[in-house]
Amino acid sequence: MARTKVGIINVTGYIGADIARIVLRHPEVDVTCVTGRSAAGKGLSEVFPHFESSELVIRPEIDVPVDVVFSAMPHKASAESCKPLVSQGLKVIDVSADFRLKDVAEYESWYEVQHPCSDLLKIAVYGLPELHRAEVKTAQLVANPGCYPTGALLALAPALSGNVVEGDIIVDSKSGVSGAGRSLTLTTHFAECNESVAAYALDGHRHLPEIRQECRRLSERVTELLFVPHLIPMTRGILSTCYARMSDTWLERHSDPAGDLVELYREFYRASPFVRVVGAPPATKHVWGSNYCHVFPKYDQRTRRLLVVSAIDNLVKGGAGEAVQNMNLMLGFDETCGLTALPVYP
Amino acid sequence: MARTKVGIINVTGYIGADIARIVLRHPEVDVTCVTGRSAAGKGLSEVFPHFESSELVIRPEIDVPVDVVFSAMPHKASAESCKPLVSQGLKVIDVSADFRLKDVAEYESWYEVQHPCSDLLKIAVYGLPELHRAEVKTAQLVANPGCYPTGALLALAPALSGNVVEGDIIVDSKSGVSGAGRSLTLTTHFAECNESVAAYALDGHRHLPEIRQECRRLSERVTELLFVPHLIPMTRGILSTCYARMSDTWLERHSDPAGDLVELYREFYRASPFVRVVGAPPATKHVWGSNYCHVFPKYDQRTRRLLVVSAIDNLVKGGAGEAVQNMNLMLGFDETCGLTALPVYP
Amino acid sequence: MARTKVGIINVTGYIGADIARIVLRHPEVDVTCVTGRSAAGKGLSEVFPHFESSELVIRPEIDVPVDVVFSAMPHKASAESCKPLVSQGLKVIDVSADFRLKDVAEYESWYEVQHPCSDLLKIAVYGLPELHRAEVKTAQLVANPGCYPTGALLALAPALSGNVVEGDIIVDSKSGVSGAGRSLTLTTHFAECNESVAAYALDGHRHLPEIRQECRRLSERVTELLFVPHLIPMTRGILSTCYARMSDTWLERHSDPAGDLVELYREFYRASPFVRVVGAPPATKHVWGSNYCHVFPKYDQRTRRLLVVSAIDNLVKGGAGEAVQNMNLMLGFDETCGLTALPVYP
Amino acid sequence: MARTKVGIINVTGYIGADIARIVLRHPEVDVTCVTGRSAAGKGLSEVFPHFESSELVIRPEIDVPVDVVFSAMPHKASAESCKPLVSQGLKVIDVSADFRLKDVAEYESWYEVQHPCSDLLKIAVYGLPELHRAEVKTAQLVANPGCYPTGALLALAPALSGNVVEGDIIVDSKSGVSGAGRSLTLTTHFAECNESVAAYALDGHRHLPEIRQECRRLSERVTELLFVPHLIPMTRGILSTCYARMSDTWLERHSDPAGDLVELYREFYRASPFVRVVGAPPATKHVWGSNYCHVFPKYDQRTRRLLVVSAIDNLVKGGAGEAVQNMNLMLGFDETCGLTALPVYP
Repeated sequence: MARTKVGIINVTGYIGADIARIVLRHPEVDVTCVTGRSAAGKGLSEVFPHFESSELVIRPEIDVPVDVVFSAMPHKASAESCKPLVSQGLKVIDVSADFRLKDVAEYESWYEVQHPCSDLLKIAVYGLPELHRAEVKTAQLVANPGCYPTGALLALAPALSGNVVEGDIIVDSKSGVSGAGRSLTLTTHFAECNESVAAYALDGHRHLPEIRQECRRLSERVTELLFVPHLIPMTRGILSTCYARMSDTWLERHSDPAGDLVELYREFYRASPFVRVVGAPPATKHVWGSNYCHVFPKYDQRTRRLLVVSAIDNLVKGGAGEAVQNMNLMLGFDETCGLTALPVYP
Repeated sequence: MARTKVGIINVTGYIGADIARIVLRHPEVDVTCVTGRSAAGKGLSEVFPHFESSELVIRPEIDVPVDVVFSAMPHKASAESCKPLVSQGLKVIDVSADFRLKDVAEYESWYEVQHPCSDLLKIAVYGLPELHRAEVKTAQLVANPGCYPTGALLALAPALSGNVVEGDIIVDSKSGVSGAGRSLTLTTHFAECNESVAAYALDGHRHLPEIRQECRRLSERVTELLFVPHLIPMTRGILSTCYARMSDTWLERHSDPAGDLVELYREFYRASPFVRVVGAPPATKHVWGSNYCHVFPKYDQRTRRLLVVSAIDNLVKGGAGEAVQNMNLMLGFDETCGLTALPVYP
Repeated sequence: MARTKVGIINVTGYIGADIARIVLRHPEVDVTCVTGRSAAGKGLSEVFPHFESSELVIRPEIDVPVDVVFSAMPHKASAESCKPLVSQGLKVIDVSADFRLKDVAEYESWYEVQHPCSDLLKIAVYGLPELHRAEVKTAQLVANPGCYPTGALLALAPALSGNVVEGDIIVDSKSGVSGAGRSLTLTTHFAECNESVAAYALDGHRHLPEIRQECRRLSERVTELLFVPHLIPMTRGILSTCYARMSDTWLERHSDPAGDLVELYREFYRASPFVRVVGAPPATKHVWGSNYCHVFPKYDQRTRRLLVVSAIDNLVKGGAGEAVQNMNLMLGFDETCGLTALPVYP
Repeated sequence: MARTKVGIINVTGYIGADIARIVLRHPEVDVTCVTGRSAAGKGLSEVFPHFESSELVIRPEIDVPVDVVFSAMPHKASAESCKPLVSQGLKVIDVSADFRLKDVAEYESWYEVQHPCSDLLKIAVYGLPELHRAEVKTAQLVANPGCYPTGALLALAPALSGNVVEGDIIVDSKSGVSGAGRSLTLTTHFAECNESVAAYALDGHRHLPEIRQECRRLSERVTELLFVPHLIPMTRGILSTCYARMSDTWLERHSDPAGDLVELYREFYRASPFVRVVGAPPATKHVWGSNYCHVFPKYDQRTRRLLVVSAIDNLVKGGAGEAVQNMNLMLGFDETCGLTALPVYP
């Protein structure tokens, strides 16, 4: 049987490159085409010396046969790239924001562009496998989640789904600098962000409506979301510290809320190979370079609040790895295929 | 007139060393004695090569005349060291936790030791100059605040004092690794904490009762405090992101809550030379190596919450610099004397 | 056919842990036993949360059947551990320094201990596969090279072997902090080594005789070696910058010394899958987390010197990965088996 | 008497900003004018929040009275800016490379531009105060040394001046990323250079002819210089590791070469307040944020080589601080005026 052929649009960004890193070693597929605009014509190893062993040449566009395509273009351009591919019947995983928000008006308001193909929103599946595994399996078009939403939702989903919390939710996230991408900015200039930490996007980050959308799908009791991202002087990783008020009803029904909370989390992720409910606060380093997510839920008795901390590698579970996980599901491979590498520690 | 003579107990820790760094260049005082236990007999420059230009020798205890003493011992031992000095009539600034909590039972519960001289608590002044300047000026014994409390309280004090907020407060703090001190631990081993971020002390950090004590002094409307510290892969700096619910009453009375909030903050700190209310989210790098604190208050209309971010250098404004600021007030010097160095950026 | 069973002695150090990381995902072997002294009885995932998915329990010693053993003990203790295993006929890869130096007197002088089993030196093979592949294939006991020697020798071997250089050699190496191990020291305390670089061991580093031994095996024209290691504020990676005087004879015989030098290097490593002769100065990040080594040789016409820069991940190609590469050769597997993961970039 | 008025051209780069940081707290001068092209019209504190306490507005050019000017423009543009100021009789300290090389042909070859005012080269003094203190005192135009040359020359000068070494010199330098300036490049993008080290400019760095010029001034026995800079994942600091062959003549004349070498260094720097000959290998952190330079010379008996390591803060002693030190000398102030801040450690 012919092996599956994979294309990657915009391999020259960090997510695109990390998809290449994973897929080049995937046992079931072959990478036949990688594209990039300004780097077209160059060898992949010329742009990224860590691909020294690869002979791939960067092409201006997908121009050889492929079965499945990852699009790692910026928003809007990505939807425009995906549209014809979907029409041709290819399976597409879009890592941009274009197909994540179901409400096109909300998308256009937050991203300040017109959606190029909003009709595709109804077939797009929000590709957080732990929440939408069944739909991803049969999807033709998957919207790969944002890095922050992946971390926040994996932290909150069991509690929301189990009606453990209610009211406002606060998500205070700490991200490594690679999350800002490979485009040059003063904010990501080494001397400016090294040995420093700062909050940003206090007027509202574009991942806010995405987190909120999924929170509300999971629970009607969520009123509002306050999401504050921070830039941390490290390359990879997102730690999300989430705060929510415990439901009085839930507390009344549970004589051991701390223990039952952990049990509820473990049960929720029992069939999810990449999410681990851990017994001590996680560090992003515990999952570095891997597709794993560590989640630590805690009932803070003093304040009657839920406190949950999750750790992911923003470029893997929060991007490239999750995209490959979605590909595996879409193609009927084992969900973990090509993704079993352990975190690189220290 | 004779110049003031200064002693530093336990100069070999990071706070003690940073007090030395500042006081050695202070125009009004002379350092006559620095102590350390295991390093007694060594030259200060032998233990710390950045003091290469100093001829000071570390002594086992304060055994030469001094007028004012900084004690940078660990808790309990510090109180034991301070007690006889206070009896002798010396002015003492204790940077340990021993004289911060007014409730001795709370101290003994959180620190799991018996207080060696709880009678001194009644004369000790909590040395956050921006809140207790007048008392510090006449104090003989000052309890220098913890690093986290300094950042959190400077962020919250104007809002609390102005009855802007009510209910629970959440403080999510991000600290550089120097805050954990110079004692060796796996947590502060480079390879373990570099390129990583983690939350810690989720069962309750010892700075929690200290922050709560001062919050409640400022406002009766504070119900509880949830404080979550995080370790960040940088040496110096604390960023505190604080969340509180805006008072409905206050919101009703203000037609421009966002603008009035900033004005209230500016007014609160008008006479405080080291606190700056800034117009954009601060980075810890903006205050690196200095005694400044940058505070950014914001009204988040969507969630009707107050969001305040403050940035300090944990060893300066959160430790040694604040201690010298207290010394200046106690001795009648200008509050900024010896502390005017600008932040080192980048 | 029964799968090969692997044991790891002292899994709780960084090299031991990284061997576990690689071997746990190796397609041809099973890890049946990992040992550690102070951590005996604990789960591997308890000591290292990145092994969350592993059920292995740390044992006090190798007490279940194994076919091949990695010893990651400190020197002397390692030889003592290996001795009985070798007697039992097991294949052993020792990552300590105990079997690297052929001259027992030199070993005892540099390491200041008596060798516990110097008789084994004659059967031990120095396991730099690129230099000793054939011997490793038939060895029962392999001495895995030090991290610095791996980087330095891969940089210099082609030039030495080809008689390109003569006289003194200078190796100026820059290592990440993980090279200093997991034991706590002030030197590796985050606040002390972050945002700093320093040379160390200027009186002579223990890897010096090891590099010199192999240099002299390769060329009689090497007179002396000056090796200066530096500690760099990063976790993983060694960059070795090597300086040597070009042989006049060689220069006279080559009309295009720059080009011929590169060609000689490429030829030397043609059959070595992990060494890449690259066309631009390498960064350690280009090989991060992988078993690859990038080598960049350059003829500096102005000074008639050879300048070679090599980059490795000190814990992989400079430790755990190289050890697994040796295991593959000893067991007749493909040399790259279990080691094909691409570098994690950025 | 009127206080001295200072202008800074191009305050928006790192050297310009660090000059401002120092001069704004200098007890003898006032900053009356700071310029920047793209930022003209903005407040200094708007561009650099660490100057929050300053009211200065960035101007397009020097348009108010000044007595002394620092020019921190890029090369060529800087000479063009300095020319009219020199004509007006102002004292000028140029931190660009324009007046450092005495041989205009060498300048034009390395910098690939025509020199705009080569006639000024004859009045320009190379402003390494430790080597040219007397000339700087009477100079109108000072060429502030490059960061690498400052570190390398302070390491080598005593040995060269004392005829201790001969033949080739190798300088292997490790610099923090701020040395590459504030302009955005992929090389200085956080995710690319963090957790990595690389050599660069292997075809010849522009600081090479500058180091060589001064080495040859100091000793006729220097034949060639091989200078290899490396980029280190830290913000500030340069460590220079220098290798040279000891003169046989000198060795014969000294029965205790190791001790006499150190004594020669101490003697050389006896009147230089910022250079410290230290007794253990220095770390760049030991001088962080200060104008100090730590130098550690060592005679390596095994190879009969001189090994010298020096540590500076590249932006202070290797830039802004040295410029102010030159200003002090030119204006007759104490050499250390405004520069006595101790290093910020850790």
